Amino acid sequence: MRTVILRLGHRYIRDKRISTHIGLVARAFGADELLMDIQDPLVERSINRVVEEWGDGFEIGIIKDWKSYVKNFNGDRIHLTMYGININECIDKIKKSTRDKLIIIGGKKVPSDVYSLVDYNVAIGNQPHSEVAALAVFLDRLLEGRELDREFKGKKRIIPQEHGKRLVEDS
Amino acid sequence: MRTVILRLGHRYIRDKRISTHIGLVARAFGADELLMDIQDPLVERSINRVVEEWGDGFEIGIIKDWKSYVKNFNGDRIHLTMYGININECIDKIKKSTRDKLIIIGGKKVPSDVYSLVDYNVAIGNQPHSEVAALAVFLDRLLEGRELDREFKGKKRIIPQEHGKRLVEDS
Repeated sequence: MRTVILRLGHRYIRDKRISTHIGLVARAFGADELLMDIQDPLVERSINRVVEEWGDGFEIGIIKDWKSYVKNFNGDRIHLTMYGININECIDKIKKSTRDKLIIIGGKKVPSDVYSLVDYNVAIGNQPHSEVAALAVFLDRLLEGRELDREFKGKKRIIPQEHGKRLVEDS
Repeated sequence: MRTVILRLGHRYIRDKRISTHIGLVARAFGADELLMDIQDPLVERSINRVVEEWGDGFEIGIIKDWKSYVKNFNGDRIHLTMYGININECIDKIKKSTRDKLIIIGGKKVPSDVYSLVDYNVAIGNQPHSEVAALAVFLDRLLEGRELDREFKGKKRIIPQEHGKRLVEDS
């Protein structure tokens, strides 16, 4: 199962850190690729630096005609939105399918066609919080926590400690 | 069980949205209070506006002497850090305790004494990602998803839809 994250409506400067966090969460929680409809070299640079230092493949791409992409995506299309159906009610059904997953994360103003283009509008609760949190919890539920056991083969890696910090770095 | 979030090392402007997201995640995922060691009226205003519109009690406080607070906290003290023990290995033990929880979220530079002051250093995976994501996944695992079924009694509330948006607003 391939998992692609589509970030819509990124705003320069204002969203730089949020979109970077979305990319880093996508990578750390087992997604394969981040697509954005708006290119931001600062976001790409931050994510690519982490990929280079911490390892493994993770793609960032730009997609101008995202509507066609969503329409033609061969798999389950899931839009994370506070207006959708509570994840507690729909995650079991979504998990039963082994098809590829497209997970859409909107910004402040999501074009309203997104709601009808997708197979699922999923709410990580119906309260306002954070698209970064929504993505992380969705992926953690989808992959049942296994994504956090994955070993990345990077130049940098952490040896987990009960108290303190231990970082190994290959030069 | 009372759950308090302590956000350390907030930086003005740069961290405004990240710290606001931390507060909103804390509220939406069942925590009772956000404490910060640095006061930022912009963050407080954003969170308080959500509380006012979307309901229920959620406290924001400032704590200058956070070390004493952590030392004297009567409950389990948990620091979320990529250097810690993988949540998959320690969450069952943490969940067994019904004591109050203090969850510490550091910024870019966490004072090193945090690691020794707490009972648990917990990693939501050992890869770099996002403190917002870490908090959300930790609370979702701690409360086993029940936090997302809670009904808030606010002026605004959402009627979940499979496709589309429905917001009810009392005037």
